[in-house]
Amino acid sequence: MDLGIGKVEIEEVHRYLCGGRGENHEGNPPSPVHPTEIRTSISPSSVVELNTTSALATEAGVLWLYDHGIEGSAEALNRFQHLGKKVFYVTNNSTKTRDEFVAKCEKLGFNTTKAQRDVAQDEILSTSYLTACYLKDLGFNKKVFIVGSIGIAKELEAVGIRHLGVGPDPVLTDLGSLVSQDLKLDPEVGAVVVGFDLHFNFLKMMKAASYTNNPDCVFIATNTDERFPMDAANIVVPGTGSIVAAVETCAGRRAFKIGKPSAYICDAIMKRHQVQYRHPSGKALWVPDTFSSNRGD
Amino acid sequence: MDLGIGKVEIEEVHRYLCGGRGENHEGNPPSPVHPTEIRTSISPSSVVELNTTSALATEAGVLWLYDHGIEGSAEALNRFQHLGKKVFYVTNNSTKTRDEFVAKCEKLGFNTTKAQRDVAQDEILSTSYLTACYLKDLGFNKKVFIVGSIGIAKELEAVGIRHLGVGPDPVLTDLGSLVSQDLKLDPEVGAVVVGFDLHFNFLKMMKAASYTNNPDCVFIATNTDERFPMDAANIVVPGTGSIVAAVETCAGRRAFKIGKPSAYICDAIMKRHQVQYRHPSGKALWVPDTFSSNRGD
Repeated sequence: MDLGIGKVEIEEVHRYLCGGRGENHEGNPPSPVHPTEIRTSISPSSVVELNTTSALATEAGVLWLYDHGIEGSAEALNRFQHLGKKVFYVTNNSTKTRDEFVAKCEKLGFNTTKAQRDVAQDEILSTSYLTACYLKDLGFNKKVFIVGSIGIAKELEAVGIRHLGVGPDPVLTDLGSLVSQDLKLDPEVGAVVVGFDLHFNFLKMMKAASYTNNPDCVFIATNTDERFPMDAANIVVPGTGSIVAAVETCAGRRAFKIGKPSAYICDAIMKRHQVQYRHPSGKALWVPDTFSSNRGD
Repeated sequence: MDLGIGKVEIEEVHRYLCGGRGENHEGNPPSPVHPTEIRTSISPSSVVELNTTSALATEAGVLWLYDHGIEGSAEALNRFQHLGKKVFYVTNNSTKTRDEFVAKCEKLGFNTTKAQRDVAQDEILSTSYLTACYLKDLGFNKKVFIVGSIGIAKELEAVGIRHLGVGPDPVLTDLGSLVSQDLKLDPEVGAVVVGFDLHFNFLKMMKAASYTNNPDCVFIATNTDERFPMDAANIVVPGTGSIVAAVETCAGRRAFKIGKPSAYICDAIMKRHQVQYRHPSGKALWVPDTFSSNRGD
């Protein structure tokens, strides 16, 4: 199998990860990706110096399209693992827990560290997990208002953080009534997390903006991917970045970004998983998917 | 009554109107305003050289708070009209028709040109009306997908333009089903208009982005006001600008802006209503409400 792999140093990976482009609301159309599972393949631009690479970072979404593995991807990743390389699955997808990603990897033939579920979970670096890590590291002990999916809720629960907001929250009245009596805000909320949310609506945006109006409220976005154009003709699926743009605009604040291409996810890999990017033996491969979430410009 | 009015030239009004700040998604918290009806009062910064002003531009939202006129506002505006000044009510509010604004003016004691409804309507410059004007001037003959309120729909109907999208449009299925079979796009849609929409949700955003994915699709935003902070403690009401930011992000395009502070609304006043801002006799007063929608920086 020709992987088209070449040569890359960990510094290049670092540049990808920590490129400093924390948000992308500019006019350039983003690269085509697929909803919920980012699609790509291991391409000639995915490069590695295998003999010196001791850590391999790649992405869950690179490897499958919905429930179908992309041809050759599992074989390639398993080969890296067989060579003794540490494989990480790094994804901006906030809708699943790490456990669900492990199950998906196994189902599609990707060899995670089998029979040791805790170890296997360590190979998954998802934005829902890293959001929970970030809040835990802050010593956060209030409630989180989630504009997002169940994956965030479950990862927060795993570290003992209370939450609310997941699921449909329809507008059942007019704006005047909403403002004067019907809007229920929880005084225990101390953070807002914005991820992918199929049930995103005006009311959720209003609640998020109201909570973040308190400058002490922590404000987190899982990622800023703008859209997920489909193979289906002319259908565009908005990404988390579109929801984040809406909430940031009415919040009058910028959210702290967890996922690629923010610096946080890079720090998390280095600090939590002993990827010593400056050490000669610590070289790593980064297999990017989309230009917008991995670029270093 | 002391209006605190001073001296301003029409060039200054022009700078306010055409300041070139078409969008405002930056981090600065916007000035406090009120939902649906922008609140302010005629302040010392609202200045006019009465003897040479032949056209007076001001705003509906400056004058009332919901259904209550702000003290002295009607008296001041009526005095200007009595002095022979032409009064325009300029508003970014896209939720009402001009006819509804005329009715509101009359109810609250503002003297529009009574008993001549058509003439009175000419005194109202709302973003829903100007959106219809803009599309009519383009010779637009397809359908408009509206992310917005009934005011836009009615103004489009008044110029014979077909539309769809107003009202609730709940998400009734999962994303996969939505993409594969349930998303209904109308091939006759040739424009997307984004205004204030209490029923804004992920599905509307998805439809708007899918329509605007066609580069021939006209893409209009009524205005970009970010939020409407309330008197009520800690409640923030998102403005149209937050909805626009979401749609622009997934659309990968910028919308053409109709309302303040875009250049279009200035051109419309000058061209449609004979405000000759460079003519010595054509001086006008601009009574601004919020900093963010009227500034010239």
